[in-house]
Amino acid sequence: MPMTTTTTDEAVKAIIKDRNEEFFDYLRFASVSTQNRNILPTVEYVKQMIEKTGGETQVLDDCGGNPVVYGYFPAGKKGNADKTVLFYNHYDVQPEDPLDEWKSEPFEPTVRDGILYCRGVSDNKANFVVRLYAIQALMDSEAGLPCNVKFLVEGEEENGSPNLGKYIKKYADLFTSDGCIWEFGGKDEEENFVIQTGVKGMAYFDLIVESAVVDIHSSLGAVIDNAAWRLTHALASLRDKDNHVLVDGFYDNIEHPSDYAREVVAEGKVNSKEMTRIYGLKHPFITKDLDWSTEEALAFYPTMTISGLLSGYTEEGTKTVLPRKASAKLDCRLVPGQDPKNIERVLRRHLDKEGFQDVELILLKGLKAFRSDLESPFVQTVKTAAEKVYGGPSKVVLSPTNPGSGPMAYFGEYLNVPVASSGCGYAESKAHGPNESVRLKDFEEGVLHMVQFLKDFQYA
Amino acid sequence: MPMTTTTTDEAVKAIIKDRNEEFFDYLRFASVSTQNRNILPTVEYVKQMIEKTGGETQVLDDCGGNPVVYGYFPAGKKGNADKTVLFYNHYDVQPEDPLDEWKSEPFEPTVRDGILYCRGVSDNKANFVVRLYAIQALMDSEAGLPCNVKFLVEGEEENGSPNLGKYIKKYADLFTSDGCIWEFGGKDEEENFVIQTGVKGMAYFDLIVESAVVDIHSSLGAVIDNAAWRLTHALASLRDKDNHVLVDGFYDNIEHPSDYAREVVAEGKVNSKEMTRIYGLKHPFITKDLDWSTEEALAFYPTMTISGLLSGYTEEGTKTVLPRKASAKLDCRLVPGQDPKNIERVLRRHLDKEGFQDVELILLKGLKAFRSDLESPFVQTVKTAAEKVYGGPSKVVLSPTNPGSGPMAYFGEYLNVPVASSGCGYAESKAHGPNESVRLKDFEEGVLHMVQFLKDFQYA
Repeated sequence: MPMTTTTTDEAVKAIIKDRNEEFFDYLRFASVSTQNRNILPTVEYVKQMIEKTGGETQVLDDCGGNPVVYGYFPAGKKGNADKTVLFYNHYDVQPEDPLDEWKSEPFEPTVRDGILYCRGVSDNKANFVVRLYAIQALMDSEAGLPCNVKFLVEGEEENGSPNLGKYIKKYADLFTSDGCIWEFGGKDEEENFVIQTGVKGMAYFDLIVESAVVDIHSSLGAVIDNAAWRLTHALASLRDKDNHVLVDGFYDNIEHPSDYAREVVAEGKVNSKEMTRIYGLKHPFITKDLDWSTEEALAFYPTMTISGLLSGYTEEGTKTVLPRKASAKLDCRLVPGQDPKNIERVLRRHLDKEGFQDVELILLKGLKAFRSDLESPFVQTVKTAAEKVYGGPSKVVLSPTNPGSGPMAYFGEYLNVPVASSGCGYAESKAHGPNESVRLKDFEEGVLHMVQFLKDFQYA
Repeated sequence: MPMTTTTTDEAVKAIIKDRNEEFFDYLRFASVSTQNRNILPTVEYVKQMIEKTGGETQVLDDCGGNPVVYGYFPAGKKGNADKTVLFYNHYDVQPEDPLDEWKSEPFEPTVRDGILYCRGVSDNKANFVVRLYAIQALMDSEAGLPCNVKFLVEGEEENGSPNLGKYIKKYADLFTSDGCIWEFGGKDEEENFVIQTGVKGMAYFDLIVESAVVDIHSSLGAVIDNAAWRLTHALASLRDKDNHVLVDGFYDNIEHPSDYAREVVAEGKVNSKEMTRIYGLKHPFITKDLDWSTEEALAFYPTMTISGLLSGYTEEGTKTVLPRKASAKLDCRLVPGQDPKNIERVLRRHLDKEGFQDVELILLKGLKAFRSDLESPFVQTVKTAAEKVYGGPSKVVLSPTNPGSGPMAYFGEYLNVPVASSGCGYAESKAHGPNESVRLKDFEEGVLHMVQFLKDFQYA
């Protein structure tokens, strides 16, 4: 159904309306990669959505892990076939627990007050759909698609993308392009549209201690130690209360950001009061008494976080045992120069030195950090297109490093492209938490940004 | 069916065989007090078992909590009606988790190689049944029951006996006696029969930290702290790796044991190698490098143990969150002079002083410690009767303080009686753990010890 007689705004609105059930059905796939749920049906659905929009597809599955979907839309006759944009997205989502904190079913898309709630909607199913709609709007227009567009849609992002590097390396010719639009992004607490051009890396560990083959009556605590105490002391030795990592070598080899990146970050305006309100924080920001700003911490400082703890009796009431086993999830966000394998090495050395040889350390996920050149034509075009859609330069923020992680380093290493994000999230999207959401207005604006960017990029 | 023509041994064997299904049905009640499961049906069954043996009963339920069953058997015509023994037992048991470590159903009594497995069999349903069988054997004998026997069977022992003190205080006249046989006990790693005449007290806490109203994407760990780190640092501040409690005031007011108690403890022979084997311990005893012995630690030193930890994501794989909540179970075993309420006060003060005002501290269980006079006729008769049954003085050990806890202090305070244990447990009974058990041979000997004791006590 060509839309050539309508404005872009109207065309986009019509596509959103027309393909709503298809979008919602995509959201209904509980495609939780860390639990290996619903992967292949979701792959098939992603393939169909690209084909329905008019693209070619290939499902790549010969490098292990969950399949990667490749999509391709050639530039229209009036477009510039020498320019190619790569869209990186992922079809997998985080687990939905804690279930009892969701106000509607986690995998049933539900609209309340103009906000669409569903696990994975913000991270990042809506962003994939935004790109498809932008392509459709342009293909339906008189001018046609202004440049070539490729998709790389993977299914292990929420599990640390353990196989993505192998696919990008092997299929580097297929994915060759002039720049990559990243999967996430959106507006901050003050409704500024933030374009991320780098990510932190990650080293995510299981720490496991076993002290006995059976839980023991706690009366024997006078002479027998237990796994919960061992783990508690091991963890406490890793980081102090003020967020300083105490592990020798953890901060080694960090690459300092460019002066331009520092300036951009210094202009940032993270609204800590608003974040405190949104998350209901009971403590002040950790940076309160330190010599760097919130913006610098988010962009340039590595972190070490306990994401989970489990040992012994955890139900209501009392049970008097020495737990035989204790485990923790430890999540480190890395910056350029840090290598997950080296972080594993220095953590192991630290534990051994502190007498915690009994604490098993297992690297579950490793990803390096990445930063794009902020001044590249690709990044600048993403920015100027955003300024047209989101209300001018004062409402658009460039960010050298997203505090989150992603497999961006592979795109630099194997494809040699700059990367910039465009997403329809907002400050309360609650990615990874219960009641994850996007606002329908942001969703529509996201499509318009991608339309504008593709139009502009043919001349960049 | 009078047994007057048989020996005591034969009479006891016949009773054990005859009442086997009744015993097993008692074990089948999953009477988990901390989870409020099956309490009233178990009370009714306990009452019936006493009545079937020929005793009078009263169910006391006017002081709150789970009912207390009172039982009474008067001395026979040839016995000494001026002597009264009180049996203290409990019909509640610990929770059965972790379920996957049981080799047979936790609440289905199962015999393998002469060993009876069931949750609660060792702690302490078998001991209650042992006493009933001893009474029956004596009532069936020509001499009849040698003294008066009373029962106090409560249902909140595994929950810290929060209401028992009120019942004993109110019904002190009903429970008046010359001494109390305690609910637990049995043989140690070297098959010595151990008689406990005191217990440690207990202060059991929930520690809870909430850092936000929602789990937060862990990328924000650069600026936002989380409940798991707060709890880890709070716990690590309470006790060092070598089992020294670091809380000011924790060790205050401790009553030193008598010289005789010290001598008895010094003669103890805890077999740490055997305990290490049985429990599959991965670490040496905590006392290894300290200036007190294992025996002294178990008898005279208070403990602080983490019995449980829970925060954030605890399943397989990874989830990258800042947990909004973290909680721990903290179990302190106290010695005479320590008061649970004061332990709560000094812990709270310590947490506040260390900057952990956000860590909520909830006292779930509080019990004081207790020690009997080892030289009293009651304790000495329990001992000499044991020497007759268990192979002479070299095989019987007096212990001033069991390292476990129990509400013994109420019996001293309100009834003014000495207390001594007699139980059919053994070193691998695994009370509170999976595959809890008693050996059938120990069960039979337990009946014989109680028969011998009741015979001897009429003359004590």
